[in-house]
This record gives sequence, C-alpha cells and structure tokens, in this order.
Amino acid sequence: MSEYSALPVPPMSIRFDQGAGTLSPEGPTLTRRMSDLEGLFRDSEAWAAAVADGDPIVYSVVSSPVPEIDRELPQSITTIQPGTTAGELWMTKGHQHPNHQGEIYLCISGHGGLLMFDGTETRWVDMTPGTIGYMPPGWAHRSINVGDEPYSFLAVYPGGAGHDYGWVLEHGMGQRVLAGADGLDFVNYVEG
Amino acid sequence: MSEYSALPVPPMSIRFDQGAGTLSPEGPTLTRRMSDLEGLFRDSEAWAAAVADGDPIVYSVVSSPVPEIDRELPQSITTIQPGTTAGELWMTKGHQHPNHQGEIYLCISGHGGLLMFDGTETRWVDMTPGTIGYMPPGWAHRSINVGDEPYSFLAVYPGGAGHDYGWVLEHGMGQRVLAGADGLDFVNYVEG
Repeated sequence: MSEYSALPVPPMSIRFDQGAGTLSPEGPTLTRRMSDLEGLFRDSEAWAAAVADGDPIVYSVVSSPVPEIDRELPQSITTIQPGTTAGELWMTKGHQHPNHQGEIYLCISGHGGLLMFDGTETRWVDMTPGTIGYMPPGWAHRSINVGDEPYSFLAVYPGGAGHDYGWVLEHGMGQRVLAGADGLDFVNYVEG
Repeated sequence: MSEYSALPVPPMSIRFDQGAGTLSPEGPTLTRRMSDLEGLFRDSEAWAAAVADGDPIVYSVVSSPVPEIDRELPQSITTIQPGTTAGELWMTKGHQHPNHQGEIYLCISGHGGLLMFDGTETRWVDMTPGTIGYMPPGWAHRSINVGDEPYSFLAVYPGGAGHDYGWVLEHGMGQRVLAGADGLDFVNYVEG
C-alpha cells in the first residue's frame, strides 16, 4: 500500500463494522487480482491459466483515512477470497517492513492463517474470529485463506513501517501452504 | 504503563474475547484507584472524601504480553467503572506520548468518550461498541465513562510512544466532562 499518499488527519471517529467487514469513513482501496501475484505461486503455469481465465480478484484491502506516514497508526481490512491454484491456497503477496516495526491482525470472519518468516525460521498462527496475530519487527508476513468462505481481518500498523514486496520475491516465505486431503500441507518454499 | 518492562516476544497468537473484555495470554495488569488520581478531579475535597471512603477502583488496564518498547505494537484493554465525583465523570488519568505517535482505541462495551487536547484545541469522540477513536500524534488523550455500565476499549499503540502523565497535570485537558441533567456538560478545565 505504498501507493497511497495522504495528508495527516485530525482526531476522528471511525466506524468498524465487524459483521460487514467495513471501516467508515473509508480511505483508499486496493484490489489484487491474480495477475498482480506474478512469481508467487509455486505452479506458474496454473497461475497463468488463472490469469487468462478471468483474472479473478484474490484479495482486497480497504483502509481508513489515517495515512501511511511516519508517526500515524493506520488501519485496514483485508478480505481474501477462498480458492486454490494448483492446490496452493489463495494468499496475499506478503511483505516485510523495511522500517522494522510490529503489526497486529485481528480476524473478524472466516478462517485464515498468518505465515511469518524472519529469513530463517517460519511461524504459523491459525486465525479465527477473535484471534489477534502478532507480527514482531523483522518478521515478513503473508495471510492465507484456509477456509471455504472469505477470510477478513483488521490490520493495525505503524504508518512509517513501509511495505517491501520484493523481499518476499527474493527470500520467499520459508514455506508454502497447500490444501491437503486431511488439512493443510506445509511444504518448503525452495522446492517450488 | 511506563512501569512495565519485558523482553521482546516471538510471533504469537493472542485471544481477544470482546464479550469478556479479555486478552489471553495476559501480560501486566494495572489498577488505578481513586488515590492514584490525585490532582485530576475539579473538586479536590470530594476526591479526598472518595479516597477516604474505600478508595474505589476507577479503572484497570490489562495488557497482552507484547512489551512497551520501541518498534513493538502492544495492546491493552482498559475498563473504566461508572461513577462521578462531585458530578465529574470517572476517567483515566490521561497522558501525552512524549514520543509523538498515533494510537487507536476500539470500544468493545459500554458507553464512553475520548477527550483529546493538543494544548490549544479540544476534541471529543463518542465511543460505543464498534467505534475506533483515532488519536493523532501530539494529541493528549483521556477516556471517560459516560454511561451506567463499565466502559471497555482495546488500545493499540506503538511501544516506544511512552506515557507522560505529568503533561496533563501541567496543561490540563482543555475541558472537563460532567454529568448534566440532560446529558454531558463540558466545562473549561481552567475553571476548576
């Protein structure tokens, strides 16, 4: 969301409707289609076929008006659609904060997971409504929908943390998460 | 909560039970009795009488294990009991962040208000369940229970922001909030 820019905001009230998955007033909205996720799925041919076959929306991010600038504390709601591409569960691009700072995700609906990677170790937090997933500074993070319904969470993050998506393309996320016959299959990223 | 100290934490899952108003696992808990609020109520004699008459708990703050250190993003749940002291609604001490950074409060139960003061201007955000009150950097803030039930909110704030309680003793909060016959009465702080 480094695409965003805005001026500082005054003290304000933001309506957080957990049932509807909305913030009001709204700020910028980001929509990620399959074509925006180039180089991230293990099976690049299946990815290209999905792009050719309607290029579906994989996830969207709706922000509050609080801007992504240093010292502010913006919020957003991400909704990931359910789905798989060659068995790999639909996910966000994942990013590292170039200015290492902590972040929280609060699950509001659906069933997801939070994959974290510090360049060496991988951690997984199962996300159901009411779970706060904590990402300490220095841990890259990706969200994954592991259920059959849309998965939504509220993110709160320091506005000056930044988003480095290239870090994940270069380093991976340690593991990939596939839909298995009896649950989730975690496979090493480098085997992709 | 500058009393707290702890080591950094790994990636973790925190259960946020909005009905019960709890975070699990829990970190430090802070309890503020009437005697901890010296110099803050307009009527110091009524304050002293309340201290003498059982020194009631005015509010408590339960934190998650995420520590209050730079680059982390801790969370806490504050619960303010309903009550008045010489008509002035029960409230938190209020503080300024010496390292100016934004903060959010999410109301989870009861009816409260968020009073903000930048040294010149005052702002008020009415807080009901689902309201996110946004405190931009540089605005001192105090929470006030304006209802008949306990008022609880989740706070998310940068761990390095700090808490300067002396700022409020020196500068006030611009206004005081009293229980009026037909709602809230806002009076100038300096008239106290």
